[in-house]
Amino acid sequence: MVPSRGQSERGKIILISKMAEEVLFEFLHMELVSYIYRTAKNNEEDTCISKLEHLGYRIGQSLIERFTKDTPRFKDDLDIMKFLCKDFWTAIYKKQVDNLRTNHQGVYVLQDNRFKLLQQMASGKQYMEFAPKYLALPCGLVRGALANLGINSIVTAEVTSMPACKFQIIIQKT
Amino acid sequence: MVPSRGQSERGKIILISKMAEEVLFEFLHMELVSYIYRTAKNNEEDTCISKLEHLGYRIGQSLIERFTKDTPRFKDDLDIMKFLCKDFWTAIYKKQVDNLRTNHQGVYVLQDNRFKLLQQMASGKQYMEFAPKYLALPCGLVRGALANLGINSIVTAEVTSMPACKFQIIIQKT
Repeated sequence: MVPSRGQSERGKIILISKMAEEVLFEFLHMELVSYIYRTAKNNEEDTCISKLEHLGYRIGQSLIERFTKDTPRFKDDLDIMKFLCKDFWTAIYKKQVDNLRTNHQGVYVLQDNRFKLLQQMASGKQYMEFAPKYLALPCGLVRGALANLGINSIVTAEVTSMPACKFQIIIQKT
Repeated sequence: MVPSRGQSERGKIILISKMAEEVLFEFLHMELVSYIYRTAKNNEEDTCISKLEHLGYRIGQSLIERFTKDTPRFKDDLDIMKFLCKDFWTAIYKKQVDNLRTNHQGVYVLQDNRFKLLQQMASGKQYMEFAPKYLALPCGLVRGALANLGINSIVTAEVTSMPACKFQIIIQKT
């Protein structure tokens, strides 16, 4: 056994654990993005985005599987979207979506005013061109989660001023 | 604002958040491993391992930076190792290292009897050949953390029966 350094240590470990929850996913995501761009041939932005989106899709599928293990069946699409905005978002990004809008015809817009994965970058419009690469995986997460709940969708993200960000979900009727 | 579904919802959100902390890093890590192997030319195991180790190294550096922000200066190498075994390990893997040994000449062995990133695989010796790819990034995490605390090291992992695993740290005197 690792020798104990007393009860006062416990508080510190809990604090560091809380810190880790906040940053572990973030750091791993940042390194993943940087790795995929670094290894891309001819810096093909589209390929990188689509790879990240696909990774996100698979993770989203797995996550929703776990998260909904004990939840009752959803009433309708709106009910699913509310679950995404509250439970799913809080679980991943430690905050809820700030605003959910819909045209009631299969289009939903989720607005997050301080999106976690953009917070490390400068606020405002300065580095906005770099935002898309940090939003591809999150788009995939949403699309994968929805797919596993039986909803085919197209998910895109839009940034107007960092770290605020809008995710648009267009449900594909089959 | 997303409409509230009452106080009873809070418990569910906290539960799902706890679940996410447990699996988010794990899922992202699994996808990263699978991506790196999938895209490797000629399935070069060594290259994949070294890429994962390097990603881990960078993440380890960043993590330790945050974790030690408010901790007092470490007394010696052993003190640093204890920090790794307790705080660092708990933060990332939600449990402490089970056993720490040293020869007092710069070699440390950290034993984890149920290593988190191996728990999804079958116990025993059956799939042991697949273990190394899930241990490369964790080795890098340790090496990166130590590097940022001024210790150059070589970190390797060894599995004798899953999900138990030993990390050997050899400090490089400069």
